[in-house]
Amino acid sequence: MLTVHSDSHFMKQALKQAELALEKGEIPVGAIVVCENQIIARAHNQTEQLGDVTAHAEIIAITAASNYLNSKYLPNCTLYVTLEPCIMCAGALNWAQLDRVVYGAADDKRGFMRYGKSLLHPKTKLEYGIMETECSILLKSFFEKLRRS
Amino acid sequence: MLTVHSDSHFMKQALKQAELALEKGEIPVGAIVVCENQIIARAHNQTEQLGDVTAHAEIIAITAASNYLNSKYLPNCTLYVTLEPCIMCAGALNWAQLDRVVYGAADDKRGFMRYGKSLLHPKTKLEYGIMETECSILLKSFFEKLRRS
Repeated sequence: MLTVHSDSHFMKQALKQAELALEKGEIPVGAIVVCENQIIARAHNQTEQLGDVTAHAEIIAITAASNYLNSKYLPNCTLYVTLEPCIMCAGALNWAQLDRVVYGAADDKRGFMRYGKSLLHPKTKLEYGIMETECSILLKSFFEKLRRS
Repeated sequence: MLTVHSDSHFMKQALKQAELALEKGEIPVGAIVVCENQIIARAHNQTEQLGDVTAHAEIIAITAASNYLNSKYLPNCTLYVTLEPCIMCAGALNWAQLDRVVYGAADDKRGFMRYGKSLLHPKTKLEYGIMETECSILLKSFFEKLRRS
């Protein structure tokens, strides 16, 4: 029997990726890509490990999903990410033409929503605030620890 | 004797990268990163070859320059690119905190300037229109050939 999973179910999987990032001393952001109810890509922020500002969870997840599907475009996919994407990632999500983007916590400083939903592809549906508290707590604890060190 | 090269000199090198992209059937965009008057990274658009929408010349050039310098940030670097960067690439250039960004041809449809220079880092200086004609001709011939095929 096929179980159709909820957005919370998938956001929990993205959160697991964010926890992996945290363990490695990275800003804890995680992302997954879901196609036809299946997770086809998992990624977490790797900017410190790779010394590369472009190694955000979303960018790595898009590349991995494209490799998996052997397709440049991802029109049947949903990307779940624990934090509101930045301008760079919103631009990448636009090019990938995803069906849906779902994010958890808002990012008032660096998030793309300062420029509005139009940064995404017109066909891409957007949802946010899914498991916002859990996604935020992880980020807050990271930055508090950073300030104390 | 140290020769300080002009923007045109370096844009010609970015154009060579764009020509490489053209030979491979890619939209002909090329980029280089210059640090202290030396080219430290060369890249061209590889979205078709890699089947990856994030494989723009600028993204690859930033990653390569960061690897070369072993630094996430590129405050002493100039990125030359033959076409006005898209939103994704402008976001990446912002994170990289480059000293200067120089582009050739304008991209009224997908270029970041629709949203203004503020998409780049406040410390990044911007110049454009360098070898605009040469950069445009390459792109125009690509799209004309595409329409005929």
